[in-house]
Amino acid sequence: MNASPLDNIRIVLSHTSHAGNIGAAARAMKTMGLRSLYLVNPVSFPDKEADIRAVSARDLLGRARVFNTIDEALEDTVFAAALTSRSRELEHETYDARVGAEILLKNAQHHPVALVFGAETSGLTAVEVSKCSVKIVIPTNPDYPSLNLASAVQVMAYELRMALMQAKPVKPKQTEPATLNEIELFYHHLEQIMIRVDFLNPQQPKKLMQRLRRLYARARLEKEELNILRGILKAVEKHLSSKP
Amino acid sequence: MNASPLDNIRIVLSHTSHAGNIGAAARAMKTMGLRSLYLVNPVSFPDKEADIRAVSARDLLGRARVFNTIDEALEDTVFAAALTSRSRELEHETYDARVGAEILLKNAQHHPVALVFGAETSGLTAVEVSKCSVKIVIPTNPDYPSLNLASAVQVMAYELRMALMQAKPVKPKQTEPATLNEIELFYHHLEQIMIRVDFLNPQQPKKLMQRLRRLYARARLEKEELNILRGILKAVEKHLSSKP
Repeated sequence: MNASPLDNIRIVLSHTSHAGNIGAAARAMKTMGLRSLYLVNPVSFPDKEADIRAVSARDLLGRARVFNTIDEALEDTVFAAALTSRSRELEHETYDARVGAEILLKNAQHHPVALVFGAETSGLTAVEVSKCSVKIVIPTNPDYPSLNLASAVQVMAYELRMALMQAKPVKPKQTEPATLNEIELFYHHLEQIMIRVDFLNPQQPKKLMQRLRRLYARARLEKEELNILRGILKAVEKHLSSKP
Repeated sequence: MNASPLDNIRIVLSHTSHAGNIGAAARAMKTMGLRSLYLVNPVSFPDKEADIRAVSARDLLGRARVFNTIDEALEDTVFAAALTSRSRELEHETYDARVGAEILLKNAQHHPVALVFGAETSGLTAVEVSKCSVKIVIPTNPDYPSLNLASAVQVMAYELRMALMQAKPVKPKQTEPATLNEIELFYHHLEQIMIRVDFLNPQQPKKLMQRLRRLYARARLEKEELNILRGILKAVEKHLSSKP
């Protein structure tokens, strides 16, 4: 098998309730050439129902990795897309399934990326979405938008394959993207500084961190830029007076 | 509900073996706004398993029509597309899922049309295909092309909805962009702070400001985001000690 950008795309299923959906998702992935399945806190896995629904995609289940937190599942990724149907006040950049798949594939040329799906009924939490780079919405019937989880995986996997068939080889990027975990450390550091200078009240944080996350998610930070931002924070920290 | 060309598109499932797939297909249809389900010789229907998998699309099952032959199911249609993965010697015109959906929708503007799916394992017979106008193939992984029946319905229903929307991207919320002049003031302020905390040496500035400009230019700052960034700088300024 030749290396394909599809191999850089991991499907992350967070808090899946029904094991059958994990199996059906694995089958959906394999029919389109996706292979990496990451599970965050599944209710039941491994599970006989998952095996049954996977049919001949059980090898994906056997290689699936299970984690306790989404941060672990996003380790090493430079880009993540959150599948969601809901609109929130503070939107990440939002794309439909087709454009979203193209963007995901473009980002997967040289580095690992993730496509993240939430629990069947409740979807992704706001915190989970905030850790992703963009949102993807599959257009649905507004009167009945209740797409089955494995069906949503199927549609996205299909769009990724279509994008692959249409993609032209791209030039290697000159710059190294920051990983999402590194970016999380930056957010944490920034938050601490904002609290120390009384800009952020931890008792009443409002939506400050969400707004800043949205801004930097849009910018797609490079490793070097991230180092500069962290450097500024460290320098500021050193020069803060102990009492205002 | 307004009249839509989707209402002219009937999904025909021929000789379906597993009732669960009929239910899952009904759900897949409804999520994309399709409503007419025609069944040719299903092994078991109505069936409890179909009801379970349909979830809230049971109304489609209730209105589903059951026939003995594909000719009856195609009654009144002016156009029919056969979903197939196999190549046969005498090919109908064959389209991929995307182009096929566009053609189907175009033909559905004023008259009934059909999209026909065969049995899970064996697919459509040569005779059934020969009664259709064109063939549609969903691109798959050549090493594992075994798409579940309801998943195939889901992909096609999704493509029909996309064709209906003419691939209109989901627009993010309208926000007020910051002016370039406002952004200049931010850069200036940031530079001052970096100098004060000894992160930037004005004698040897390297390319720090250029790099930061590039980052924020890419992000296309909104007015409110700019206000937050300026607010952070002001708060930091107030808390800086006069001497390090």
